[in-house]
Amino acid sequence: MADPRFFTRQGPFTLAVLAEYTGCRLADGMDPERHVSDVAPLDRADAEHVSFLDNPKYVDTFRASRAGACFVRERYAELAPAGMALLFSEDPYRCYALTAQRFYPVHAPGEGIASSAVIDSTAKIGKGCRIEHGAVIGAHVEIGERCSIGANAVLHEGVRVGNDSHVGALSSISHCYIGNRVIIHRGVHIGQDGFGFAMSREGHVKVPQLGRVMIDDDVEIGAGTCIDRGTGPDTHIGAGSKIDNLVQIGHNVQVGRNAVIVAQTGIAGSTRIGDGAVLGGQVGVSGHVKIGPGVKLAAKSGVMGDIPAGASYGGSPAVPVKDWHRQTIALARMARMRRSNEE
Amino acid sequence: MADPRFFTRQGPFTLAVLAEYTGCRLADGMDPERHVSDVAPLDRADAEHVSFLDNPKYVDTFRASRAGACFVRERYAELAPAGMALLFSEDPYRCYALTAQRFYPVHAPGEGIASSAVIDSTAKIGKGCRIEHGAVIGAHVEIGERCSIGANAVLHEGVRVGNDSHVGALSSISHCYIGNRVIIHRGVHIGQDGFGFAMSREGHVKVPQLGRVMIDDDVEIGAGTCIDRGTGPDTHIGAGSKIDNLVQIGHNVQVGRNAVIVAQTGIAGSTRIGDGAVLGGQVGVSGHVKIGPGVKLAAKSGVMGDIPAGASYGGSPAVPVKDWHRQTIALARMARMRRSNEE
Amino acid sequence: MADPRFFTRQGPFTLAVLAEYTGCRLADGMDPERHVSDVAPLDRADAEHVSFLDNPKYVDTFRASRAGACFVRERYAELAPAGMALLFSEDPYRCYALTAQRFYPVHAPGEGIASSAVIDSTAKIGKGCRIEHGAVIGAHVEIGERCSIGANAVLHEGVRVGNDSHVGALSSISHCYIGNRVIIHRGVHIGQDGFGFAMSREGHVKVPQLGRVMIDDDVEIGAGTCIDRGTGPDTHIGAGSKIDNLVQIGHNVQVGRNAVIVAQTGIAGSTRIGDGAVLGGQVGVSGHVKIGPGVKLAAKSGVMGDIPAGASYGGSPAVPVKDWHRQTIALARMARMRRSNEE
Repeated sequence: MADPRFFTRQGPFTLAVLAEYTGCRLADGMDPERHVSDVAPLDRADAEHVSFLDNPKYVDTFRASRAGACFVRERYAELAPAGMALLFSEDPYRCYALTAQRFYPVHAPGEGIASSAVIDSTAKIGKGCRIEHGAVIGAHVEIGERCSIGANAVLHEGVRVGNDSHVGALSSISHCYIGNRVIIHRGVHIGQDGFGFAMSREGHVKVPQLGRVMIDDDVEIGAGTCIDRGTGPDTHIGAGSKIDNLVQIGHNVQVGRNAVIVAQTGIAGSTRIGDGAVLGGQVGVSGHVKIGPGVKLAAKSGVMGDIPAGASYGGSPAVPVKDWHRQTIALARMARMRRSNEE
Repeated sequence: MADPRFFTRQGPFTLAVLAEYTGCRLADGMDPERHVSDVAPLDRADAEHVSFLDNPKYVDTFRASRAGACFVRERYAELAPAGMALLFSEDPYRCYALTAQRFYPVHAPGEGIASSAVIDSTAKIGKGCRIEHGAVIGAHVEIGERCSIGANAVLHEGVRVGNDSHVGALSSISHCYIGNRVIIHRGVHIGQDGFGFAMSREGHVKVPQLGRVMIDDDVEIGAGTCIDRGTGPDTHIGAGSKIDNLVQIGHNVQVGRNAVIVAQTGIAGSTRIGDGAVLGGQVGVSGHVKIGPGVKLAAKSGVMGDIPAGASYGGSPAVPVKDWHRQTIALARMARMRRSNEE
Repeated sequence: MADPRFFTRQGPFTLAVLAEYTGCRLADGMDPERHVSDVAPLDRADAEHVSFLDNPKYVDTFRASRAGACFVRERYAELAPAGMALLFSEDPYRCYALTAQRFYPVHAPGEGIASSAVIDSTAKIGKGCRIEHGAVIGAHVEIGERCSIGANAVLHEGVRVGNDSHVGALSSISHCYIGNRVIIHRGVHIGQDGFGFAMSREGHVKVPQLGRVMIDDDVEIGAGTCIDRGTGPDTHIGAGSKIDNLVQIGHNVQVGRNAVIVAQTGIAGSTRIGDGAVLGGQVGVSGHVKIGPGVKLAAKSGVMGDIPAGASYGGSPAVPVKDWHRQTIALARMARMRRSNEE
């Protein structure tokens, strides 16, 4: 179970409650009033716990598990140990995630404005907000309802935040509209002017960056990530997209809906990332490039041109992932040949 | 036009004023007293706007543009739409940048020391400075005139800052001399001790880092960037150099004048970057290497040896950029051959 | 000598004191009561300074050095200039590091709690601690003796810190146990929830991250680095490990003892790094991978599979370092062949 020093558990819950909450069907013959008191992975769960089987690799662990209940696809029902209560779903990991959220809801330490927070007299703060110590809220900032602003965070003049959104400690935000249910982690910097210069030998002249950053609903942005504001057009992060830690997003970048961008990836100016695209860690994408919807980029890919919808690419310069594997095999063969020559 | 929530526009200005300010020549027959009220790109400009043509790719956009005025090289004059006032320059983008600065001067929200800033009694703050809420200014810090220190920024003991410089919110600076007109964005960390250890199996022993960071005039440093202080020699960033977000600069690194270092690049200890060198995003340079003046490194280059002045390199390990393209083509051919074998 | 604006020097010390402090043997015939007043590299040292010879590349510099004293392996004794006092050790760099620490001990600006620090009434702060301005210490935090917490740093609810540890300015820490003599630099973010989602086209569901971050004794963590907490298991950094700036460490990662992780490296979830492993800069390691003890990874390596103990790997995808060099040579040859064809 989670360390009570940091986590507060709710529950127990009956199987009926969890089935309804997650949209699963409880297998026939199971007692809907049976209680479970926590979540746990298959190999650590006991009779009090609810677990899940998603990846078929873990079928053996499932067969041997002592979990009292389990989210699972119906086709694995026969393999379940005796006495395990099965909750059927075609997306058992999603059900598990929702259940874990139910047991461990996001800690809401109560509303209120800390005594050392500094809020400009022209700022508007909605009902139920929490503003932590040392936070600085600038002129004409508007924050919706039930938001939280972390300790020592800085919201610059004019920033607008929707409802139920969270800005982490030590983050700074300017020139930005933030939607609803957005999670911005700690140490995130949004809205600084992008890297725009008229370059010349006599010295680079700064080009004013006159756009904004638009962050739609349900976006999550990881710790230490930087998002520059647009040059005149805006930088835009589409609804539901998830951005990991230490990512760099340049001016005018357009990220579609439900995209996933893993840690330390960098996206140069004016590039477009399609809906549902998944970029692995440490990927680099050049400026003015179009990454189609549903594209998958392997970690460390270096992308310099457009990639069509649904394609999987890898390598640097990135190529279709099958070609990348072929290149890797061919290189290994060449190295082997050199090695035999050396011997 | 830029969102008035975040930007305050000056003007309008006459063409005569802009021509003088940017050093351009107004084409014959144009009315020098004609006014423009804003900047805009060619495709979005109307009669009230001044635009620019720099990249010849956009000649067709230029021909169709409704911009009232345009910075352009004289040789394109014949292609201009009727009625467009032309401002001739061999560096039209630079003129546009200066003009945009004139319309949208950097927002200077007024001098003064915020009530929650903490300033050591031995620190000296020049005239016209702005110190924002929660900033912490240590003992013996000296700040010149007309500087601004952002909210919750931390200047450690002894740091010296010239005139007209800016330190962003949530940045920390120690062991550092900062010149004039330097822009340090938010979340920048300068002067921490570099990664120096006498390594051994029994445990790594920390080597005291006894140098400083010297930042010359007109340098700009992007959000989230880290610059370690020297080991005894100093780390040095030359005048006019521009460093993007999330860059890592190790101890004793020497960056020349007017260099450009794009986001997420890392430069290891004691390496020297020549004047005017341009390093693309996610480049890595090993320690103790010399990158000559004017060198260009493609994004994601991995540099392990010296590179002569003026050369263009790419790949990892980096090679002359033409060889890198040849390697890429050869690899693609090998992958194709494997593919046909598979079929 | 180090800039007295930033560094305070102790000493002078006699050779006898330094020999005892570092465990060296003073060469026969040298006066143990002779004093040295500072450390310096061989080429800048004079009669007042103590230096070191570690890398045999610098033997000529050693022969010509004017240093009054020098840590050196005994086998180089014959090459020493006349009058130089030799301090024999098989690890002269380590002795030098310890000596430099003696001359320039870490600046301890005195204990006390700054007036603008905010400390929850349920937090426990040990004797001799220093809490700087604007720091925010949450409920039930426990800090041991002689710790320092930098300006505007944020320790969230329940965090526990051992003795003699340091948290840098503008860092945030949650869900974390920190050992003794740990150094956390500035702008570090530890304990945020990792990047865990049940992904689906209808929107990614957040998976609660119910683990912690455990940081053992003598760990050092560089500026801007992010370490996510575990999913249920913990993220763990073993004793004596040194992590550089802007590193990303995902949930459930296990780093062994005395590992070294250079700047901008990223380690994906559930990966294990063995004792004493050394990861160069900008390395990327996939999730669920085992890097054996003593493994060395060249800068920019991309690791997608397990690596056995003691091996040296490089390239992306990473291969044994000799094979990587062979690949590089083979690629260079192919590019040369294409070039001749072009001519």
